[in-house]
Amino acid sequence: MVPMGEFDLLARIRERLPASGARTHLGSGDDAAITVPGGATATSVDALLDGVHFRRDLASPRQIGHKALATALSDLAAMGAEAGEAYVVLGLPADFSEQQCLELLDGMTALAAATGTDLAGGDLSRAGELFLAVTVVGHAPVPGELVQRAGAQSGDALVLTGEIGGAAAGLELLDNPRSEADSVLVKRQLEPTPRLAAGRALARAGATAMIDLSDGLGADAGHLARASGVKLEIEAGSVPLAPGAVALSEATGRDPWWLLSAGEDYELLASVPANHLEEATAAVLGEGGTALTQVGEVRGGSGVEIRLPDGRLLEPGGFDQLA
Amino acid sequence: MVPMGEFDLLARIRERLPASGARTHLGSGDDAAITVPGGATATSVDALLDGVHFRRDLASPRQIGHKALATALSDLAAMGAEAGEAYVVLGLPADFSEQQCLELLDGMTALAAATGTDLAGGDLSRAGELFLAVTVVGHAPVPGELVQRAGAQSGDALVLTGEIGGAAAGLELLDNPRSEADSVLVKRQLEPTPRLAAGRALARAGATAMIDLSDGLGADAGHLARASGVKLEIEAGSVPLAPGAVALSEATGRDPWWLLSAGEDYELLASVPANHLEEATAAVLGEGGTALTQVGEVRGGSGVEIRLPDGRLLEPGGFDQLA
Repeated sequence: MVPMGEFDLLARIRERLPASGARTHLGSGDDAAITVPGGATATSVDALLDGVHFRRDLASPRQIGHKALATALSDLAAMGAEAGEAYVVLGLPADFSEQQCLELLDGMTALAAATGTDLAGGDLSRAGELFLAVTVVGHAPVPGELVQRAGAQSGDALVLTGEIGGAAAGLELLDNPRSEADSVLVKRQLEPTPRLAAGRALARAGATAMIDLSDGLGADAGHLARASGVKLEIEAGSVPLAPGAVALSEATGRDPWWLLSAGEDYELLASVPANHLEEATAAVLGEGGTALTQVGEVRGGSGVEIRLPDGRLLEPGGFDQLA
Repeated sequence: MVPMGEFDLLARIRERLPASGARTHLGSGDDAAITVPGGATATSVDALLDGVHFRRDLASPRQIGHKALATALSDLAAMGAEAGEAYVVLGLPADFSEQQCLELLDGMTALAAATGTDLAGGDLSRAGELFLAVTVVGHAPVPGELVQRAGAQSGDALVLTGEIGGAAAGLELLDNPRSEADSVLVKRQLEPTPRLAAGRALARAGATAMIDLSDGLGADAGHLARASGVKLEIEAGSVPLAPGAVALSEATGRDPWWLLSAGEDYELLASVPANHLEEATAAVLGEGGTALTQVGEVRGGSGVEIRLPDGRLLEPGGFDQLA
């Protein structure tokens, strides 16, 4: 069954899509898009729902579109893949206007253009609540150039792009606004940046394992440790925290180390052989425009150990005591 | 944000997935799946929502899973592609149990196994209503072996696989059950079969354009005619209608020709050069196990003209007068 007006809306959406990318032989409008990948592909799907992953009262349609594509592309960044194509499913509730739908698409097409992603297809449906499901396909010449969660070796350096805690602080500020100066934190929450160039630089520099931080440093480090069959030792004092997030924690009487469990920063956590650390740091800064910081080491064993500057040891499940 | 129990449920789902296919280097469980397509890919996304595309009171979880994958694969059939990988997003309401979720996946994995499809990844989220978004990737050696909606030429024969009307009749019977003998119609509605082998046979036999029937013969013929820039002349008397559907129409006092506008049969409509018609018919029967019937011809011009046996002409928009 086709929702009323779907064909009209699809036509208006297609008018706004930029020309297809080099790999796309046939874009939106047929039964399927046709591409010629020419090597290995990395494919990931992400669902975003109103009330779960965003709130329509806090984010504009444009920001919702941006965030849906950004979080999907972040998975490609974590593979060290080049962004390729995106396919978008929209579930549209009755109170989401056609104009809002087009604004949502504008947020997506702007990020697609900035990252070289081709919006190659999609589907629309009526829905009780707004949701998006985004499939992204990334590319690499051969599978071996893509970086998995498994592969970290004892002795590798554990490295992190950028800084964390900003997105969670931004979420708090959306509910309890303080000052204009906090807009950088709010933007981290509403308009995350997928670290695609940094991910490719890390892959080329020999990263042995990689993951993007959606669930929080502790939880995502746990995923990487489990997949690689290693123990990750993290020095909390080395982890770059967003300055505004630390200030917010202090102002609200919370231990700033809770930010180590804060999610949605979409930074990359990777293991790099110690003798590649210098090369990786230079490459991430040069190509990704992002700082790369060593935050710990890979050891034999299992699990994640986070050492606070005062010597306390935290398990990823132990953050609640700080919150 | 991660719904409670998502990781446990994901682990149980992964246990039930069969081993990965030949093209899949890395399946579900990392940031992205890794595949090596080795040629051209056809990619399509489909959304199915409770109350729009299925009803939880009428379809079992297993049937819902089957139908979601089947309708997505039908788009690959319409390209003449070989089924490859599927990526599944599930939006799970609070009253949909983990057991129901696993049954839904069982319906999907059974069809995946029958069609050679690899369930290579997915995402779960809490949701207010049950929905599925399925991305499927099909394969062909080169883009030219995939069949688009554009390409029909004046003089081509217009052909149809199988028979139509069964799915719509099945939907009526679900609401108003009559007898056990109607189960074949109900199955057409709840467990459609993607015509993958027939689609590949038609592609190899030189089909110039193809589409699957989701919106109904009239509407989908309109899509093909528009994309190809041709006129399609359909002889209604040649169109194979599901016998039970005709009987149901007569029993309920409706003109059986309304079945020409009935949707969700997922048969294939294609244009074939007249001198390839015999070869195509033999190939679809031999490889797809399905009858192929000439239902009309491709002419210069635009639009779709359906001629009833009594000489009346129907436009695709003119079915309402019959209903």
